[in-house]
Amino acid sequence: MTGPEIERLIQLLARLPGLGPRSARRAALHLLKRREVLFLPLVEAMTAAASSVRTCSVCGNLDSCDPCTICANPKRDPSQICVVEEIADLWAIERSAAFRGRYHVLGGVLSALDGVGPDDLSIAALVRRAGDPAMKEIILATNATVEGQTTAHYVVDRLAGLPVRVTRLAHGLPVGGELDYLDDGTLAAALQSRRAISSAGGGG
Amino acid sequence: MTGPEIERLIQLLARLPGLGPRSARRAALHLLKRREVLFLPLVEAMTAAASSVRTCSVCGNLDSCDPCTICANPKRDPSQICVVEEIADLWAIERSAAFRGRYHVLGGVLSALDGVGPDDLSIAALVRRAGDPAMKEIILATNATVEGQTTAHYVVDRLAGLPVRVTRLAHGLPVGGELDYLDDGTLAAALQSRRAISSAGGGG
Repeated sequence: MTGPEIERLIQLLARLPGLGPRSARRAALHLLKRREVLFLPLVEAMTAAASSVRTCSVCGNLDSCDPCTICANPKRDPSQICVVEEIADLWAIERSAAFRGRYHVLGGVLSALDGVGPDDLSIAALVRRAGDPAMKEIILATNATVEGQTTAHYVVDRLAGLPVRVTRLAHGLPVGGELDYLDDGTLAAALQSRRAISSAGGGG
Repeated sequence: MTGPEIERLIQLLARLPGLGPRSARRAALHLLKRREVLFLPLVEAMTAAASSVRTCSVCGNLDSCDPCTICANPKRDPSQICVVEEIADLWAIERSAAFRGRYHVLGGVLSALDGVGPDDLSIAALVRRAGDPAMKEIILATNATVEGQTTAHYVVDRLAGLPVRVTRLAHGLPVGGELDYLDDGTLAAALQSRRAISSAGGGG
C-alpha cells in the first residue's frame, strides 16, 4: 500500500517496547508528517547516541564517556556502591536524587529458568570493586522479586569475608500508599521492619 | 545522570504518540542495548524514509514515489475515489483489501473549534478530480463522528451538480459485534439501514 521504506520503518518501530503494530503505524505517520520539527531531529539524536554512547567499564551504566559521568564525578562518594539489576534501575535511583555514592549494574538477575548464572552477571567485577580497602558499604538495590532477592542473597555470599558493610533497601509502605490496597507481603514486611518514632531515634 | 545524547534521545522519543516519558526511557535503553540488531537498522530505516517519502500530489498519501503506488497503479479503478480524513484511514482501508479504486486524503475535518475551514482541507482538489468526465463514484469514508459527518455533508454540497454518484460507508453492526454491547446510535442506524435477505436481493 505504501513504499517499502515506510513498511520497514513501521516494522522496526513495532519492535520498541510499548509499541505494537498499530501504534508503530501511528508513530511512523506522526514522524512523516512532522519531518522538520520531529523526524529529522530524532534521526540526528539517534545517530549521535548510537555513535557516542557506550557502556561504562567501571559500573555498567550507559553514557557518552567511559568511565561514566557518575563514576568520574569526584563529588560522588567512592566508598558506597549501590548494586542494581538494570541500568533503568540506576536511572530511577538517580531521579530520586537520594543517593550520592556510585553504582554497579549487574546486568540482570540469576534465573535457572532463563539459564542466567553468576558468570552471566557482573558479579566478579563487583567483588573486585568491593575489595578496595577504601570501600565502606555495598547497598543491594535489586528488585523485591524472587529472582531479585535470590540474586541479592548470592551477592551477599560472594561478599562474605570482605570488610564492607552490606545493606539492602528497606521494604515497607510506598510513600502515599494506602494500607487497604497493599499486598499482604508488603504489609508483613512493613510491620516487621517497624521503627520507633520516639525522640530517642528509631531502630532499623 | 547520563550523557546529553541519551537525554535528548529520550526527550524526542517521548514525543511519539503512545510513548510517555517513562516508556521513552525504556525505549531508549532498549535501543542502546540492541545497537546492532535494532538501533542501527532503525536509524538507517528512518534516514531512508525521511529522505525518500513524500506526499502524493494527486491523493495526499505518503509514499516514496509521486504519484504514489496506488495512484500510479493502472489496475486500480480510476473512476472511483474513496475520500478519507487521514492517511491512517487510507492505510486501514488498504489493509482490508476491500477497495480497488483510488483515494483522496482530506487532511483532517472541518472544525470551527480548531479553526479548520474548507480551505485548510484538500477539498478543492477533490472537486477538480471529481469533475473528470471519467469519474463515476465518490465514496465518503470520513469517520462516524460529528466532525467527520459534518465534513462529509460539506463535501456532498461541494460536489452537487457534478455527474458523479456520491455514496458513504454503511453504518451498522461491526462484524463480530454483539447487540448488547452496541451503543444506541449504531443500533438505530443498523435498524434503519436494514437489508432484505430474500433471494430477490437486498435493498440499501
